Amino acid sequence: MGQKKQDRPSLYGFHAVREAWLNPGRAVDNLYITDHARKGFEQTILEAKGKGLRRPQPVDVDKRKLEKMLPRDAVHQGLALAASDLDEINVQDFVIRAEKKDRTVLVMLDQVTDPHNVGAILRSACAFGVDGMILQRKHAPDIDGVLAKTACGGIEHVPVAYETNLSRSIETLQEGGFFVIGLSEHGEKTLNEIDAPEKTLLVLGSEGLGIRRLVRENCDELVRLPTSGPIQSLNVSNAASVALFALT
Amino acid sequence: MGQKKQDRPSLYGFHAVREAWLNPGRAVDNLYITDHARKGFEQTILEAKGKGLRRPQPVDVDKRKLEKMLPRDAVHQGLALAASDLDEINVQDFVIRAEKKDRTVLVMLDQVTDPHNVGAILRSACAFGVDGMILQRKHAPDIDGVLAKTACGGIEHVPVAYETNLSRSIETLQEGGFFVIGLSEHGEKTLNEIDAPEKTLLVLGSEGLGIRRLVRENCDELVRLPTSGPIQSLNVSNAASVALFALT
Repeated sequence: MGQKKQDRPSLYGFHAVREAWLNPGRAVDNLYITDHARKGFEQTILEAKGKGLRRPQPVDVDKRKLEKMLPRDAVHQGLALAASDLDEINVQDFVIRAEKKDRTVLVMLDQVTDPHNVGAILRSACAFGVDGMILQRKHAPDIDGVLAKTACGGIEHVPVAYETNLSRSIETLQEGGFFVIGLSEHGEKTLNEIDAPEKTLLVLGSEGLGIRRLVRENCDELVRLPTSGPIQSLNVSNAASVALFALT
Repeated sequence: MGQKKQDRPSLYGFHAVREAWLNPGRAVDNLYITDHARKGFEQTILEAKGKGLRRPQPVDVDKRKLEKMLPRDAVHQGLALAASDLDEINVQDFVIRAEKKDRTVLVMLDQVTDPHNVGAILRSACAFGVDGMILQRKHAPDIDGVLAKTACGGIEHVPVAYETNLSRSIETLQEGGFFVIGLSEHGEKTLNEIDAPEKTLLVLGSEGLGIRRLVRENCDELVRLPTSGPIQSLNVSNAASVALFALT
């Protein structure tokens, strides 16, 4: 567990802070809160006490002081949290966990870099009960700040593995029994035409470029969205939600 | 057709500008373009000529000058367009158009105010072949700028009606044979359990509040997303995409 002391808040926004506060896997160093936000957070404080979590006394701050701690334009809703990082996890862990489950769905993002998009995908992944996400270490945003805010707490529930080589990660998952579905306009079948196997990895690429060739060639099947209009591509987080709805 | 002269550019970003440039329903007054963006736009200029559209000579500008014309942080990609507004349309027009079609799907947004979300919904609506959208006049963003950028050209293909009273609009559509489905956590059935009728109106509310009570009570059926995770709500544009995938 990453218990390094964090003075600067890395999380902000009601849902992001609430879910981190309630996550036993997080050590919390400081919660900075405005008077306006305090009332809305009382229930969360009680819930954490009920769960026996060790949490510090919140620190009262005014809006101006809070905003000085955070990036410009952060949508903080009156709360900012300094907490330990989440545990690190890797693809091999996902293989082991899948052994004990009837169904596992993982999501891999190939160079999706916009934290709003990755955050929205994490939120949807959480809602559809996804078991984990895989991002490429060099081309992915950090799991905090705007990503965490957009994920609305989803980062506390969906473990994220940062891997160096996505093609190798796919091979590891295939050896562990995963069927790998790439969402791509090159797909012959549409999402409506496939059934998700017991262990599924869904791979999504960036909006402009799609899944890179080498990663794409490692997929067991490419499927496309059944779109038909004059502009056929969706925002990547919307595409991810549709695919997760179809596969879960 | 709104032919009022527009000096200030209201549209920016490659796809937003490209689709407006190719839309015969738009009069175009000026295209401001950087040297860097010009090459990528040449194909679009040829396409417009091929369609016989009257378009002005693009005006070369540098990045600094372009940014002075646009809102702060506008993601312009080197292009900004001053064009006439789109034609106005209303719910009654949608009823008349639906008479001539085998299937019609409309989307109504009840007080969804974030232009990024409305833009992403328009993009998905376009991809899934939606016939029109209905927004509430007082609580909806304008169809330009960041909304148009996020919609990636979708605003040129999906007509948008601004209405004052959404409950009355629903009644008008019901009289025209539409079946009205509200997406709501109060729904008894899930999206998987319903078939879309020939004329369908999908109603979505804002993320925090959902569909307002009076509007909700006018729906013929409420359905919910089949989510199951610890955090069950989706971003509204993701929810819209999933619903459109299921209904179209």
